[in-house]
Amino acid sequence: MRKIISILKSHKNICSLLAIAFASAVLFVHCSEQTERTTELTELQEKALSFTSPMPEHAFEEGMNKSDEIIELGRMLFHEPRISKSSIISCSSCHNLTTFGVDQTPVSIGHGWQKGPLNAPTVLNAAFHKTQFWDGRAKDVEEQAGMPILDPLEMAATEEHVLEVLASMPEYVERFRAVFTDQDNPLVYENVGNAIGAFERILLTYSPFDDFLRGDANALNEEQKKGLETFIEVGCQTCHSGQVMGGEIFTFFQTPREKETGEFHKGRFDFTQREADKHFFKVPSLLNIEMTYPYLHDGSVWSLSETVNIVSEEMLSRELTPEQNHLIVEFLKSLTGEIPAYALELPVLPPSTPQTPRPRFDI
Amino acid sequence: MRKIISILKSHKNICSLLAIAFASAVLFVHCSEQTERTTELTELQEKALSFTSPMPEHAFEEGMNKSDEIIELGRMLFHEPRISKSSIISCSSCHNLTTFGVDQTPVSIGHGWQKGPLNAPTVLNAAFHKTQFWDGRAKDVEEQAGMPILDPLEMAATEEHVLEVLASMPEYVERFRAVFTDQDNPLVYENVGNAIGAFERILLTYSPFDDFLRGDANALNEEQKKGLETFIEVGCQTCHSGQVMGGEIFTFFQTPREKETGEFHKGRFDFTQREADKHFFKVPSLLNIEMTYPYLHDGSVWSLSETVNIVSEEMLSRELTPEQNHLIVEFLKSLTGEIPAYALELPVLPPSTPQTPRPRFDI
Repeated sequence: MRKIISILKSHKNICSLLAIAFASAVLFVHCSEQTERTTELTELQEKALSFTSPMPEHAFEEGMNKSDEIIELGRMLFHEPRISKSSIISCSSCHNLTTFGVDQTPVSIGHGWQKGPLNAPTVLNAAFHKTQFWDGRAKDVEEQAGMPILDPLEMAATEEHVLEVLASMPEYVERFRAVFTDQDNPLVYENVGNAIGAFERILLTYSPFDDFLRGDANALNEEQKKGLETFIEVGCQTCHSGQVMGGEIFTFFQTPREKETGEFHKGRFDFTQREADKHFFKVPSLLNIEMTYPYLHDGSVWSLSETVNIVSEEMLSRELTPEQNHLIVEFLKSLTGEIPAYALELPVLPPSTPQTPRPRFDI
Repeated sequence: MRKIISILKSHKNICSLLAIAFASAVLFVHCSEQTERTTELTELQEKALSFTSPMPEHAFEEGMNKSDEIIELGRMLFHEPRISKSSIISCSSCHNLTTFGVDQTPVSIGHGWQKGPLNAPTVLNAAFHKTQFWDGRAKDVEEQAGMPILDPLEMAATEEHVLEVLASMPEYVERFRAVFTDQDNPLVYENVGNAIGAFERILLTYSPFDDFLRGDANALNEEQKKGLETFIEVGCQTCHSGQVMGGEIFTFFQTPREKETGEFHKGRFDFTQREADKHFFKVPSLLNIEMTYPYLHDGSVWSLSETVNIVSEEMLSRELTPEQNHLIVEFLKSLTGEIPAYALELPVLPPSTPQTPRPRFDI
């Protein structure tokens, strides 16, 4: 021992190196333990991660404009009623953020108290759907956002009206310029959708299930964990998979009410005109499903429990026991998330000018 | 001098007292200067303070419940669409906080796309009006808030419907209990108005004119100061006085459109049935007037400048010069204020239950 010490003493440099190596080793072991502790997932967490993943901070893709300015402009336009023909209907009228991005009615009421044909899906997490609308006729939230504004049953505007409204207010003109800096004429209809889409790309929710996927095995209670097991065992994730547990594929679906009345919606056929797409509808996301009633594409069922039974029978030919149904519903409640505070703040909109078109209430 | 010093030396106590007295005198002079500096108001500020006053933090009166809990419950109910018959119209539908508490339309659109008879006044600063509505039929915001919910042209609900909706959601039952602790049955219709009213008592705005009244003579620019002088000289403050520059008295008023069409609203007569009240309307507040177009009780005039001329001629028999009109309008813009951040945050509402009444769209 004395010999070693004397060697060390006579080799101060080696001694220093050894000390650093030792410290590094300690640090490495410590770090590995840390890493291991958070990545040590239960089998159930692993299973869940095989068909979905934790919610990211935003839904912007590589190369997209994700500046604060475009998001803020999008938030303003999302709440802007003057772009509708009546000047009293905005995106937020049907996609009410106080009620999880929906209007909680079977079908929405639009211009002139007219009813829409299908249940309005939530805007929350919509940016992660592979296509938009029940029939997938828009490829992303940017394209989607522009459509209800022009729909005669919804906001009943024209592209010209929308641009006239925005051009009439200097603050909007300035904001469009500041956001779309590379464009000579940024005030074009497409950019309205681009801005609203940008806002939707941060309209994401963070739920206990999200914490569970991130590593906290206790984020779900025992019933919810059993519910998740049942969900997987029954095969719900066959369709309800991906980032938002749905929103990826189209399936043949007829609701009990449609079967009863014989009045069927044609779904994706309306968009593609392909016979094979008749009665095909996009599989909805399950995130916040507890809050986005009523259910199914015609909004004909109000009970989540009933909906779980209907879909299970229709899609998987499985009749659930009351216990299975109960557990799945409990699990689905763990998908109810929180909306980021910024998204819940109302913008204050700029004042109209003499050039701003006046409200028109005629149909 | 030497004598004085020797006296002081031989009277240490007196010396100490003198020192304290001197220090106090210095402090007194200093403080007086400070006080004088902030209270040294210009003549114009003094004139303005003779007919109005700076906006307080809230509009609660002595003895009122002003707890965070009642304000939060009020904020929820203000945004709650399910208390309407259709379940899609809330207070915020017409009193949109993104557009200064109004819907910026001549008359509001309610249940079944029906039109209201008169222009909807803003909820901002409404708590300081001496009575509510154009005809003053409600004594305060608490009484007012309950009325549009039951109006067949507006939210078209019944008291029973509202209470059934609220009783169906455990979170509301709990919140009413926590707010109205001294009541055996807090879930009564009157308390809906009490809570919404409490929220309205913090819906106040703070403008450059408010800073001016508080002592900052430069909060108004030169044109606005001249505008204020003109405003006073012409006599606008005869009617537009008090905390919110209006909302205190009723005056005979017929709009140009009413005179043109011969179709007159009866104003306060509708409430009192007194012949003397025919065509009498509450003088509106001027706070945020730049943002709460269109103007007059029938919402028939969109231009603030035009409105200033009309009212000046009708009420004061004064024809303003273009310069006077311009200056008054510039002054009125200094009354546009900021809404407190809390009031602009959307609440997230509790989920419906199987007991919650479903939307009904029939008239």
